[in-house]
Amino acid sequence: MRWRIDLRYDGTGFHGWARQDGLRTVQGEVEHALRTVLRLPGSPAVTCAGRTDTGVHARGQVTHVDLTVETTARDLLRRLNGVLPADVSVTAVAAAPEGFDARFSAVARRYVYRLCDDPVGWDPLVRNHVLRVGRPLDAEHMDEAAQTLLGEHDFAAFCKKREGASTVRALLEFSWRRTGAGRLEGTVVADAFCHSMVRALVGSMIPVGDGRRDAAWPALVLAGRVRDPAVAVVAAHGLTLEEVRYPADEQLAARVLESRRVRGEVHHRG
Amino acid sequence: MRWRIDLRYDGTGFHGWARQDGLRTVQGEVEHALRTVLRLPGSPAVTCAGRTDTGVHARGQVTHVDLTVETTARDLLRRLNGVLPADVSVTAVAAAPEGFDARFSAVARRYVYRLCDDPVGWDPLVRNHVLRVGRPLDAEHMDEAAQTLLGEHDFAAFCKKREGASTVRALLEFSWRRTGAGRLEGTVVADAFCHSMVRALVGSMIPVGDGRRDAAWPALVLAGRVRDPAVAVVAAHGLTLEEVRYPADEQLAARVLESRRVRGEVHHRG
Repeated sequence: MRWRIDLRYDGTGFHGWARQDGLRTVQGEVEHALRTVLRLPGSPAVTCAGRTDTGVHARGQVTHVDLTVETTARDLLRRLNGVLPADVSVTAVAAAPEGFDARFSAVARRYVYRLCDDPVGWDPLVRNHVLRVGRPLDAEHMDEAAQTLLGEHDFAAFCKKREGASTVRALLEFSWRRTGAGRLEGTVVADAFCHSMVRALVGSMIPVGDGRRDAAWPALVLAGRVRDPAVAVVAAHGLTLEEVRYPADEQLAARVLESRRVRGEVHHRG
Repeated sequence: MRWRIDLRYDGTGFHGWARQDGLRTVQGEVEHALRTVLRLPGSPAVTCAGRTDTGVHARGQVTHVDLTVETTARDLLRRLNGVLPADVSVTAVAAAPEGFDARFSAVARRYVYRLCDDPVGWDPLVRNHVLRVGRPLDAEHMDEAAQTLLGEHDFAAFCKKREGASTVRALLEFSWRRTGAGRLEGTVVADAFCHSMVRALVGSMIPVGDGRRDAAWPALVLAGRVRDPAVAVVAAHGLTLEEVRYPADEQLAARVLESRRVRGEVHHRG
């Protein structure tokens, strides 16, 4: 049967989500933990909603795994947390509803990028998940610029080129707000993301925030439809996958078919 | 002339504040940074308000240093942050007012201890400064128990014994509150602390929170006046020195005399 497993992790010590031989990855740790607690002969394959890159964190990663052994949600949750290392934690386990696929039935992913723009208010306690910019940013200008990118567009200008893969995405939310003295958060929600898209979107906002570009610039970059070297891809450690959204249970299976049709071959990373 | 230098640091990578040969300490890093930016022949001695132990963090550490070279507050701030490692940061530099001594003119230190009591809501992103308890705690009971310890008492029951040193302290605030789902903060303010006192005070609260002891128990421990092995000293990494309080400038010098008289020989750690 299929299980839905929700995860949080600090990406600092991982080479991203995806299993790679000889490297410490979140997928590798979770699959190994499943094998251990269920005493399986091999590691079961775990599928995630957002394949986070090296250094990217998650508070709301969603995964699924198909298991043939008998277990309960409560037992799996407790035993996985008993063996997982301190930088990854299971927050929920549930029997997956009919038609659920962590990746393909998702309708949206929400990422938050955290910045510190106070040259002297830097807090070393959060340096693992906040990017220090060190010059004042205008959150209102950034928010204004972010609005101009909303909607369904070809985001090729903000994507790493992959032959044959569509770069059309629906950007559902992109907003900036100040969360405290010297602290800003950018929220980015889309149906899916191409590789490094969130970090390139954020990279187009910082020059707007510090006054090097005006608020109209990111939309001009978007309209160019080719990867723009003027846009820096910001550091991974400021980025956290906060939430994955799914439709009502009765629409899960239909959503899977739709996702596979639209972008079966496309990455869905942050 | 004397300079006041305010610091923040993540204690994870330090063997505490105090300089020790061959070990990485906050004092060692700051003194080395001063030597570097001012091109001094040796490291100047930096005095702090709260000698934090290994693993304890600070958002409001206050220090002073006496320098004979010409410099400005602005320049010192910028240059120190230019050479300090990412886990320690200078938040302010100012010419110290007449009579200022970071340690002896302080009237109070405020520490916060952070706990997570949600067995599945654990957030790996904050694991460097939040202690995971993993069983539900009753913050109201803990707060009630904390109130019974307020005032000037002999805190020997919560202190590491040191021959000839007074363990009388004035506990000005001790309170617990829930700051979110699964998250609690204990605030402890005193004129000064003996070694490991904050962590022993917090250690006396957890059995009250989880129901193993009633709210009257910590006051009974206090009344015992001897270090009580039933009180566990909780882990250092949940503790952060948030603030050091000083009197008005004209009372600084008098406060120094008073502090030296009362506890010149006593540690002032968290």
